[in-house]
Amino acid sequence: MNDDLLFRLIDSLRVLPGVGPRSAQRMALHLLERDRAGGRKLAADLTLALDRIGHCATCRNFTAQELCALCRNPRRDDGLLCVVETPADVLAIEQAGVFTGRYFVLLGRLSPLDGIGPEDLGLDLLEKRLADGNLRELVVATNATVEGEATAWYLNEMAHRHGLLVSRIAHGVPLGGELEQIDRSTLSLAFTQRQPLGK
Amino acid sequence: MNDDLLFRLIDSLRVLPGVGPRSAQRMALHLLERDRAGGRKLAADLTLALDRIGHCATCRNFTAQELCALCRNPRRDDGLLCVVETPADVLAIEQAGVFTGRYFVLLGRLSPLDGIGPEDLGLDLLEKRLADGNLRELVVATNATVEGEATAWYLNEMAHRHGLLVSRIAHGVPLGGELEQIDRSTLSLAFTQRQPLGK
Repeated sequence: MNDDLLFRLIDSLRVLPGVGPRSAQRMALHLLERDRAGGRKLAADLTLALDRIGHCATCRNFTAQELCALCRNPRRDDGLLCVVETPADVLAIEQAGVFTGRYFVLLGRLSPLDGIGPEDLGLDLLEKRLADGNLRELVVATNATVEGEATAWYLNEMAHRHGLLVSRIAHGVPLGGELEQIDRSTLSLAFTQRQPLGK
Repeated sequence: MNDDLLFRLIDSLRVLPGVGPRSAQRMALHLLERDRAGGRKLAADLTLALDRIGHCATCRNFTAQELCALCRNPRRDDGLLCVVETPADVLAIEQAGVFTGRYFVLLGRLSPLDGIGPEDLGLDLLEKRLADGNLRELVVATNATVEGEATAWYLNEMAHRHGLLVSRIAHGVPLGGELEQIDRSTLSLAFTQRQPLGK
């Protein structure tokens, strides 16, 4: 069993997030014992994705083409632009099915301590988009972390320079969330940003 | 984002045991965003392992060579042979570091309902080994399931025909296990197979 190839595979599987030594071993043995065809397909699709998938020239989302499917779609609203940190955020918002505009993906957040400045987030590309006169509203959907908030503030300044309406997605207690389970900062935010109820 | 290659990769990742749609998506985005080199190494090592790793001609364990490292090792005890169901069992026993003999891997267990008979478990190969006169003891380490027990009983009959000593690994309450957490069958077995204590 002390054959190098198996241990190399187990070790390589650990690049996957959330996979420790025991799951990596289980995965390697499962593929070898029970699903060699699935394993081959995984290796082929992984190579293909890594070779072909780059970033959209307009919104920086992942795509294997010059423009991503969302930027190519003629039925999206050009007047609305939602700025998010990662491609995973785009997937989550699309799965909610609530937003019909375009996206811009920062691929990160402002973080001076980590040396991540505006130029790393493609903000020059975004600035051109703000200047082109098609936009009505910029929806800022960065995360509610210190860096996400700093990024939101920076985007707000930028959009105001171009005379655009800027909005921030709402943060607060999630639907179905029980108050006793919610962290203190969210609960405190939910109180300070409480909304008047109609009569 | 609706690019096929990404969704194909997410789908392919689901062949891994314990990986559902959300973890598959997280894994695909993680590799594309943050660890393309690790992803390439994984694809290469997976292809290599699937191409090269077959079964040892002597013990049926995984190996990329004619004989596995355990069968080639001149320092293992040829008089002891441990029969297990899967290569994962060999890894677990080796990690415990308690057994110094040779292994035989059934790659399954007797299960007439699933159409798995002695010929599927390489028992002809095992029988030759029992007949060659080098063995002192056969250690049966199949699992304590209905099929594992049936397999153990079959192996016991086989070894007795060759006049060999046969032993079964002990089953009972695991070390550090708390009685109230142990399932009823294990606890009942632990009582019926209780051992006398010395004075």
